[in-house]
Amino acid sequence: MRIHVHNAVDGHLSPVTVADWKEAGGDGHQVTFGDNVQAYRAIAAEVDVLLCATLAMQPLFPLDATRLKVVSCMSAGLEYLAPFNWLPPGVQLLNNSGVQSPKVAEYVLMALLMLVNRMPEFAALQQQRQWTRCAPGTLAGKRLTVLGLGSIGQACAHKARLNGMTVTGIRRSAATHPDCVRVVGIDQLAEILPATDYLVATLPMTDDTAGVLNADVLARLPGGAGVINVGRGGVIDEKALCALLDSGHLGGAVLDVFDAEPLLPDSPVWTTRNLIVTPHVSAEDLDIYNVMTIRVLLDNLAAMAAGQPMPNAFDTAAGTRRHAA
Amino acid sequence: MRIHVHNAVDGHLSPVTVADWKEAGGDGHQVTFGDNVQAYRAIAAEVDVLLCATLAMQPLFPLDATRLKVVSCMSAGLEYLAPFNWLPPGVQLLNNSGVQSPKVAEYVLMALLMLVNRMPEFAALQQQRQWTRCAPGTLAGKRLTVLGLGSIGQACAHKARLNGMTVTGIRRSAATHPDCVRVVGIDQLAEILPATDYLVATLPMTDDTAGVLNADVLARLPGGAGVINVGRGGVIDEKALCALLDSGHLGGAVLDVFDAEPLLPDSPVWTTRNLIVTPHVSAEDLDIYNVMTIRVLLDNLAAMAAGQPMPNAFDTAAGTRRHAA
Repeated sequence: MRIHVHNAVDGHLSPVTVADWKEAGGDGHQVTFGDNVQAYRAIAAEVDVLLCATLAMQPLFPLDATRLKVVSCMSAGLEYLAPFNWLPPGVQLLNNSGVQSPKVAEYVLMALLMLVNRMPEFAALQQQRQWTRCAPGTLAGKRLTVLGLGSIGQACAHKARLNGMTVTGIRRSAATHPDCVRVVGIDQLAEILPATDYLVATLPMTDDTAGVLNADVLARLPGGAGVINVGRGGVIDEKALCALLDSGHLGGAVLDVFDAEPLLPDSPVWTTRNLIVTPHVSAEDLDIYNVMTIRVLLDNLAAMAAGQPMPNAFDTAAGTRRHAA
Repeated sequence: MRIHVHNAVDGHLSPVTVADWKEAGGDGHQVTFGDNVQAYRAIAAEVDVLLCATLAMQPLFPLDATRLKVVSCMSAGLEYLAPFNWLPPGVQLLNNSGVQSPKVAEYVLMALLMLVNRMPEFAALQQQRQWTRCAPGTLAGKRLTVLGLGSIGQACAHKARLNGMTVTGIRRSAATHPDCVRVVGIDQLAEILPATDYLVATLPMTDDTAGVLNADVLARLPGGAGVINVGRGGVIDEKALCALLDSGHLGGAVLDVFDAEPLLPDSPVWTTRNLIVTPHVSAEDLDIYNVMTIRVLLDNLAAMAAGQPMPNAFDTAAGTRRHAA
C-alpha cells in the first residue's frame, strides 16, 4: 500500500524515520515521510494510509484524498481531535494503543513504590532539611484498584500482582482477569473504594469518563490511601483531590495528567501536600515508541487485508477503541 | 533455652512482643521481655540467649552472665557496636541479616525506577512550578552494578533482573549468581564502572569497605549514570558524589544512608542537584520486622543445637557475617 508518514514539526517525540520503518519490518509498503502540510497535500490523492503525529492531524483536513482508507495517530488518547467531523466519510481512524503499556506500567509501579515508601513526605522533609525517621511498609498485601482495564490497566495490574499486591479491576463490563482477584463494572466503583489502599486511574477522556472520580467518590477512599493518574486529568475532580490531600485524608498522590495541560505556574496543584507532579511523561519510551507505533499500524493493515476487524479502530462516538476490553 | 528480649526504650521500631514471639513459632523456649537494664541484670545469670535492640546492647555490659552463649542484635550492620571488646569471651554475636532484604529490594527498585524516570529533575521542576516535558526511558536493558552481593544485594539483583535489567554483581570473591550476567571481585570495581548505568551500594561499614567508592572510582561512572546507597554512608566519598551530581556528570542519586546521621540542617547534601534523600528508612518493614528477626534467631539456635555453623554468626574482626557470600 501507499503510506505517508506525517511528523510533527516540533513535537516532544522524535520524528518517525526510514530507519524506524525498516526496524519495524514494514518493507512490503511504499512509504514516504515528511512534516510539511503542502508537501503532503501535493501527494495526498495517491495515499492509502496516513500515519500522523496526533496534534498535526487536523490541520491536514479537508483535502483531496480519494484513496485514503486509514489514518493512524501516534498516540492512544485522541480526545484532542474531537469533534471528529474533520474525518472524511469512510476513512477509519486508528490509535496506537498498546505502545504505551510497558512504559506506563513501570511508571505506575514506581508511583506505587513511592507512595508505600512515603516519598511525598520525604520530599517535603528534604526541602525543609529535616531528618525524621519512620518505617514505611511494602507493597505485599496492599489493595490496588485499577480503574480502566485496557492494555495499560492490564499491564499495571500485572506488575502489581507480581509485586504481591491484591488487585481489583474496574471496567465497563465485569469479567475475570488473571491478574485481578475480581473485576467489577464501573457501577460498583463507589463500593470498591473504601477497601482500596491505592487507586490507579488509566481511563481515556470521554463523555462517560469525565469527572467520574468526583468529590463524593474520592471521599470514599479510606484515610491514608494513595491515588495515581496516568489516563487523563479530566477523569478526576482535581480540586476535590487536592483538598483531600491538603486535609491529610489521602496519604499521597502521583499525577502525570491534569485537567489543563501544561500546568500553569500559578496552579495550586504544584504545591498541594503530598502530591508528586510529572509533566505528562509516563507513556512514551523513545527507545521503542516509533517502532512499536509502526508495528501496531502494520498489524492493523494486515487485519484489514485479511477482512478482520482492526484492533485499534477508534470509535469516534465513544472516544475509545471499538474493540477495547 | 532461656531467652531474654531486651527492647530499646525509645527506638524508632516497635518493641518485640509476646505476640511477635508466638507468631514466629518460638514456643519451645522460655522467654522474658523488658526494656530496663537493671531488670535484665537481675536475671542475667539465668539467661542463655539475649535478643537485644542494637543500640541498647552496649550499656548492658559488663555483667554477670555465666550461662550466656548467644547475643543477637535486631539489625544487620553492627559497626555501631565496634570495637567489640565489650562482648564476653565465648559468647557468639549474631545479626539479623536476611530480615531487611525484601524491603530494601523494593526500595532499590523504586530508586531505580525514579532515576530512569528522571524523578530528581521533575522534583526540582515541581518546586520551580515549571512544566517541561521529556521522554524518560525504561529499565529494560539498562546495566546495573550491585556492589555487595549479600542477602540484600542478591534481592536487589533479583528484582532488577525481573524488570529486564542486565546485572553485574561485585563481591569479595567472584562466583556466578543466577540473577547476574557476571560476578567479579571487588578488585575489578574500577573496570566495571564505565559500563554501568546504575550503581547500587549495599555494603556494610568495615575497615575494608570504608571509602571504597572514592572520588577517583566514582568519576569512572559514565555521564548520566545513577547511584543508590542502601548500605552504609561511609562506603561512599559523599563530597565527591555530591560534586559529580552538582556538576551534572551523574544523572541522579537516591541515598538512604549518609556519612554522618542524622543529616544536620546545614548539610549541603539536602540541596545537592538531582539527589533524593531519605532518612535511613529503606530496611525495616514493621509488618514483618520483629517476627522475621525472631525467626532468624530461632534458625540460628536450631543450627547451634544441631552442631552446625550459625548462619548469622558475626565476625567481629571483619565486621560482617562469618559465612556471608
